[in-house]
Amino acid sequence: MPLNPKEFVVIAGPCAVETYETTLQCAKGVRQAGATFFRAGAYKPRTNPRSFQGLGEKGLEILAAVRKETGLAIVTEVMEPAAVEKVAAYADVLQIGTRNMSNFPLLKEVGKARIPVILKRGMAATLDEFLHAAEYILDGGNDQVILCERGIRTFETYTRNTLDLSAVPALKERADLPVVVDPSHGTGRRSLVPPMSLAALAAGADGLLIEVHPDPDNSWTSDGKQSLDLAGFHQLMADLKRLAPHFGRTLPVLREQAAAQAARL
Amino acid sequence: MPLNPKEFVVIAGPCAVETYETTLQCAKGVRQAGATFFRAGAYKPRTNPRSFQGLGEKGLEILAAVRKETGLAIVTEVMEPAAVEKVAAYADVLQIGTRNMSNFPLLKEVGKARIPVILKRGMAATLDEFLHAAEYILDGGNDQVILCERGIRTFETYTRNTLDLSAVPALKERADLPVVVDPSHGTGRRSLVPPMSLAALAAGADGLLIEVHPDPDNSWTSDGKQSLDLAGFHQLMADLKRLAPHFGRTLPVLREQAAAQAARL
Amino acid sequence: MPLNPKEFVVIAGPCAVETYETTLQCAKGVRQAGATFFRAGAYKPRTNPRSFQGLGEKGLEILAAVRKETGLAIVTEVMEPAAVEKVAAYADVLQIGTRNMSNFPLLKEVGKARIPVILKRGMAATLDEFLHAAEYILDGGNDQVILCERGIRTFETYTRNTLDLSAVPALKERADLPVVVDPSHGTGRRSLVPPMSLAALAAGADGLLIEVHPDPDNSWTSDGKQSLDLAGFHQLMADLKRLAPHFGRTLPVLREQAAAQAARL
Amino acid sequence: MPLNPKEFVVIAGPCAVETYETTLQCAKGVRQAGATFFRAGAYKPRTNPRSFQGLGEKGLEILAAVRKETGLAIVTEVMEPAAVEKVAAYADVLQIGTRNMSNFPLLKEVGKARIPVILKRGMAATLDEFLHAAEYILDGGNDQVILCERGIRTFETYTRNTLDLSAVPALKERADLPVVVDPSHGTGRRSLVPPMSLAALAAGADGLLIEVHPDPDNSWTSDGKQSLDLAGFHQLMADLKRLAPHFGRTLPVLREQAAAQAARL
Repeated sequence: MPLNPKEFVVIAGPCAVETYETTLQCAKGVRQAGATFFRAGAYKPRTNPRSFQGLGEKGLEILAAVRKETGLAIVTEVMEPAAVEKVAAYADVLQIGTRNMSNFPLLKEVGKARIPVILKRGMAATLDEFLHAAEYILDGGNDQVILCERGIRTFETYTRNTLDLSAVPALKERADLPVVVDPSHGTGRRSLVPPMSLAALAAGADGLLIEVHPDPDNSWTSDGKQSLDLAGFHQLMADLKRLAPHFGRTLPVLREQAAAQAARL
Repeated sequence: MPLNPKEFVVIAGPCAVETYETTLQCAKGVRQAGATFFRAGAYKPRTNPRSFQGLGEKGLEILAAVRKETGLAIVTEVMEPAAVEKVAAYADVLQIGTRNMSNFPLLKEVGKARIPVILKRGMAATLDEFLHAAEYILDGGNDQVILCERGIRTFETYTRNTLDLSAVPALKERADLPVVVDPSHGTGRRSLVPPMSLAALAAGADGLLIEVHPDPDNSWTSDGKQSLDLAGFHQLMADLKRLAPHFGRTLPVLREQAAAQAARL
Repeated sequence: MPLNPKEFVVIAGPCAVETYETTLQCAKGVRQAGATFFRAGAYKPRTNPRSFQGLGEKGLEILAAVRKETGLAIVTEVMEPAAVEKVAAYADVLQIGTRNMSNFPLLKEVGKARIPVILKRGMAATLDEFLHAAEYILDGGNDQVILCERGIRTFETYTRNTLDLSAVPALKERADLPVVVDPSHGTGRRSLVPPMSLAALAAGADGLLIEVHPDPDNSWTSDGKQSLDLAGFHQLMADLKRLAPHFGRTLPVLREQAAAQAARL
Repeated sequence: MPLNPKEFVVIAGPCAVETYETTLQCAKGVRQAGATFFRAGAYKPRTNPRSFQGLGEKGLEILAAVRKETGLAIVTEVMEPAAVEKVAAYADVLQIGTRNMSNFPLLKEVGKARIPVILKRGMAATLDEFLHAAEYILDGGNDQVILCERGIRTFETYTRNTLDLSAVPALKERADLPVVVDPSHGTGRRSLVPPMSLAALAAGADGLLIEVHPDPDNSWTSDGKQSLDLAGFHQLMADLKRLAPHFGRTLPVLREQAAAQAARL
């Protein structure tokens, strides 16, 4: 079990690695707010082939540097089997994106890795299919699978997707795997991220993936309008820290922060 | 505004009015657990014309008797314009079901009533359409409209519908109307009702519609498997009472109960 | 069986009855092209309460006058139980719109009528639910039910709905009822109406509902962009007449036209 | 343009390559009925990791042998970038399955191939996303892209997917690429394949992908119930040959068959 069931883990960061400076700025900001995992994409699956596709290995290097500087664990996406080994050499946690939930050769390959994998639900995947996709990874011998509900595709257009929070308790009654929620992609709207984050906690989720950008309006990708800025993320973290204990959970802290806190006592 | 924004209202009861005895038993049970509104259908919109269609006016009479006996406010569905006056004579709150969200003559007619109306979102209704449906009622001069998210139809089959909790904050940022959530129809599974009820509270909902039946396996309709029994409902209410204050809300109590509590002090 | 299985019936006309003059102009145009049924709404179910809601009884009178003038049979929508008798007094065929497929009191009421009823599939209705809705009418003693596939609601936004032509053979293998197709609402785009009309013929449909407006860009409703103009409708009818015999069908002609043709021989 | 716009191409065969004998039997059967392309999967994307995953390279060898024996062109699926070169060495046409429509590294890799690629629409892909996926291939320099509508995921459960035939004219008005239709996966029901095949022709499609199995009930995969048997396929081909000319198309014939026909004259 890659996550502690008494904890509520927050994984935060920008859609994509942009420059070292903005990435580090964002990482420091989310760490200060209390996140322990940093997420950002070096390889970006973009609908339009002419959109920014990520910095690639240069992005991975930036992430490694950010980890060294901040102590945050790194979560980043891998898009093809041949890249698993390389990405796993840089990352602490691999992410399989929604478009790749049924990319079975990729699932088999991350099944050979020995680091946790966040598997995002496909846009049109039933829970059955989602759990079968997880089995592809588990069958490879990697039992550190974390399921991520990130919204399904429906007719509604006000939100980017329809966040299916009922998937959280439904998955938990069907499998012994942690479940995290991505309300940023799940709603596509900044204003809806905080309430849906609290709702995810209340529904029993083990954590969140939150898109945070120091300057959302100048994001290199199109996801700025679903990104919290650092102030918004601080507020959300304060609410989560206050509420989590009422749901039997605490927010983990980085070891060095824990040590610093202990020293202060 | 028909609901107090500092309160979290729980409306509970069986799918349909069955006998006076079981209806009263259920009402007493949900009152004891702390509900202040009782819901049950006298007119049932059933997919199959050969299914039980509700007791009709006899059901309304039972509801009126239950109100007299318990002090609970009565919420019940009206299905056609010609019946609005009659149902409104018995009920405290009218309910427009999901299949009638776009029944515009019915909306116009309840717009003439002067009691609150719970308007359920259509199975395939966008938020735009939902808000326009509410305007049909508001335009008639009835400003006591309560919106109800009850799940939308998607490809997922594990749940009966997909409960779209993001609709709660989305509706609240678009209209000044209270929003309640029906996790019973929204999920179709008893086990998912409690976590989604807590999630609705956390997402900012003003209350819940919960299906409760004293003996769910012997329900006269097909909705038994989404109904809590009385013990399950008590547990849920205990959790809601404990958690609501952390979200700035309290659960209202019946006036007589409030008086009894005051006398005991 | 209200339709002849060897025929392919085309029901054409504008979304709404506007003035007598434009309605008659449209009716004469579609008759000249070969349609035998004229459709137009006097009562319009509109999402927005401030949109044009139809001319009401005045619209029914215009339709009756148009029938007298052209010999075309009249198809028009009824939206509430109390209006069935009145609408049936003017119309040759009643139409139940997609928003009312599950308006069971209305279905029961048209079940008492003794003229054909076109029942449109609900936007999110499964075939099971659609067939059960038809049973509500059949159980009332009205066996002249015509099913209409008009598109279902999906995530696709290029088309207004997703026309589910597989519903045609699927419904035919499950019930002994005629099935017509509405490619105008089904696609929402004028350019897609002709190919989908031919596809409906090929899939085994018994006919079409086609939105035709003499001046689509000046339609009183929002449906202009899915309406064919008269020239477009003539072209479509020519294609249908040419192709129908290869699918074992002919397009019916009005009795007076048949007589005129006979006289000319 | 990899397909002749005056022709209507039928690509037929079983879900998966099973044995050489059954594969050859099927190929001879579909050739006799008039198909010119043979499809079968050597690599199968299966929801369940414990389901039969295809014969792999052994399957490719069988396909090559079948081509040699029958003269049919071979269409087969490739599931990962690293396999493109190998599969392209055996196949005449590559297929990208619905689960891989947004597998961008795979699209880029087939963009480097110089044989046609059939790109299947993702289960929840909008037409915009579908066309962008095609651009990934086109941008790589491979202009032989064939789009395939194969049904989208909706709430309907009677059919496996909802075949969106309106995608055919819609895609054609937006891109200069051929569009074929897969009614087997699109409906999931054998009985619906023939009517939807004719409807695809009428809607303007350039061809069909049809699942055919000599003994559908003993298929090695779960797709037997959507497969035509050889007699059913012969009947469908007879109907297509009869009807295609009325839509301005002919069914192509294999060169050797054309020669044999010429010799007989």
